[in-house]
Amino acid sequence: MPRVTLDAPLLVEPGEACLPAPAPAVLMPAERAGCLAEIFKALSDPTRVRLLAHICSSEHGTACACHLPDALGISQPTLSHHLKKLVDAGLITREQRGRWAHYTVVPEVLGVARDFLGESTGGIRCC
Amino acid sequence: MPRVTLDAPLLVEPGEACLPAPAPAVLMPAERAGCLAEIFKALSDPTRVRLLAHICSSEHGTACACHLPDALGISQPTLSHHLKKLVDAGLITREQRGRWAHYTVVPEVLGVARDFLGESTGGIRCC
Repeated sequence: MPRVTLDAPLLVEPGEACLPAPAPAVLMPAERAGCLAEIFKALSDPTRVRLLAHICSSEHGTACACHLPDALGISQPTLSHHLKKLVDAGLITREQRGRWAHYTVVPEVLGVARDFLGESTGGIRCC
Repeated sequence: MPRVTLDAPLLVEPGEACLPAPAPAVLMPAERAGCLAEIFKALSDPTRVRLLAHICSSEHGTACACHLPDALGISQPTLSHHLKKLVDAGLITREQRGRWAHYTVVPEVLGVARDFLGESTGGIRCC
């Protein structure tokens, strides 16, 4: 009888396991996973990635709305929408200075996501 | 006449700018932004964050499907869906070994996202 190969991953009883069980299998707390997912969700759009990159590369990590690049080719309402997503995730702050809105990167929040990803490449463990 | 404060960011002519214009205002290439956004999109769900963390913390960064934790409280089809998202984004690979599907982290792909985020905290520049 031919071996059956399934596309879906198989969940089996522990006694049938093919590799030693990891010990201890401690799951990341749901609250931390939720926080990280919120940060990553804010970065799940190419325009927001480019906006964040632009703000980060500005002097002192602060960019005025008047300098956000026309090259993105998006309307002002769309720009506002994307900026709000980044603000809501805590990746940037928005400060109204008179007529101008200034956006500043929050390195500590970027650092939370970086730390989650970063430990993976110094061995295999990442979390 | 009272000063008007607008919620939306303002886009104005360069001559009216409130801060020195950043120079040169080079946008991240769209292709790179798209690649990064795809990685972040795969991580925009708490279950996928926890799954990746679990695989990363397994020996040699490889986990058998049979050891993926029941504690997540999700069905096998849902688990397969989330694993496929991680595979499609290149964050993990899937290898069928006989009856078992093994999932292995790809540190280089995690590193691409980490490098984007990481440079922000060693100063302000992140990109």
